Amino acid sequence: MSRKVITISREFGSGGHEIAWELAEDLKYDFYDKDIIAMVAEESGYAREFVENMGESGAPAFGTIIPDGFSGTYFSPEIVSPQDQLYLVQSRVIIDLAEKGPCVIVGRLADHILKDRFDCLNVFIYSDLEHRIARIMGIEKIDAKKAEKIIHKNDRGRASHRKHYAGQDWHSVSNYHVSLNSGVLGIGPCVEALKQLV
Amino acid sequence: MSRKVITISREFGSGGHEIAWELAEDLKYDFYDKDIIAMVAEESGYAREFVENMGESGAPAFGTIIPDGFSGTYFSPEIVSPQDQLYLVQSRVIIDLAEKGPCVIVGRLADHILKDRFDCLNVFIYSDLEHRIARIMGIEKIDAKKAEKIIHKNDRGRASHRKHYAGQDWHSVSNYHVSLNSGVLGIGPCVEALKQLV
Repeated sequence: MSRKVITISREFGSGGHEIAWELAEDLKYDFYDKDIIAMVAEESGYAREFVENMGESGAPAFGTIIPDGFSGTYFSPEIVSPQDQLYLVQSRVIIDLAEKGPCVIVGRLADHILKDRFDCLNVFIYSDLEHRIARIMGIEKIDAKKAEKIIHKNDRGRASHRKHYAGQDWHSVSNYHVSLNSGVLGIGPCVEALKQLV
Repeated sequence: MSRKVITISREFGSGGHEIAWELAEDLKYDFYDKDIIAMVAEESGYAREFVENMGESGAPAFGTIIPDGFSGTYFSPEIVSPQDQLYLVQSRVIIDLAEKGPCVIVGRLADHILKDRFDCLNVFIYSDLEHRIARIMGIEKIDAKKAEKIIHKNDRGRASHRKHYAGQDWHSVSNYHVSLNSGVLGIGPCVEALKQLV
């Protein structure tokens, strides 16, 4: 079976975005990353910054429980935190995108949101801290200390986001079909291995 | 860099052994699985059954602490539990095997024991319970209930073994360079993807 939807979850600084983009290019699949932010902002009315910051990081301080599998409509804003409301809109956007045709979707718990589809390949890209720091220093032109701080902040946010909305440990193999250490393996070989598995 | 030593950790019933064997065949690498049991039994004086049962399952009830990286010589048997003694002999056997030439080593915490080598590819093969039960039923000619019982027993044993000797969560992506769900991906595609990554 050929996988129609590839979801790429990734650690910040692991090169997961680059791997996802190259994979989409090579397979001629649609590619969704930051575009999702604009779509969710438009549909929800929330500011882009809020969507960008909250769409895959953190969880509401007082957690409302979203019923498992719920994603089709809205709760009343009065009873749902902004983060949860955002999650629901984002879920609907991602479900619609996956319906449109073969695609690669980066982040935003797409693997969990699309868990009822049988044509997904769910990928996790991670790397050791050293490689991630070097990568972020190069991209953001910042020093190692600042890079490490940003990485840790992102790690905490993404871990708690997954815990809250999917009930999963971010680093557990069980969430994904494939997990690759891009620092040890290299970006190119990761792309080739994933093409083999699609 | 071509990877000289491939370690395959695996869930019971995931087909990890088969993937490891096919990979070794295709790459013309030496293949070590049950052979390690005989070597460790001979070197340690312990019965094969004890080595087979304890070599990658469980941990001593009263844990002695083995210094990190210690594997070259023996502690006095008086102060070390049989399991720990076994672990030390097994570590030495695995280090020696890795020195001999390109190889695939199945299980027995080889990834952790060889963590100071830079030419290892550390792989984890796992699968969903359903696929594993079906596989074990077919191989062992037993019913689903019994298969599930054996699987859970093995899971518990391997998880506590890794926790005790490597201080790691068995299912954490961070332990490995590649993790593959063989039930979803299939045995053949896993072998091909790993060849790509070696």
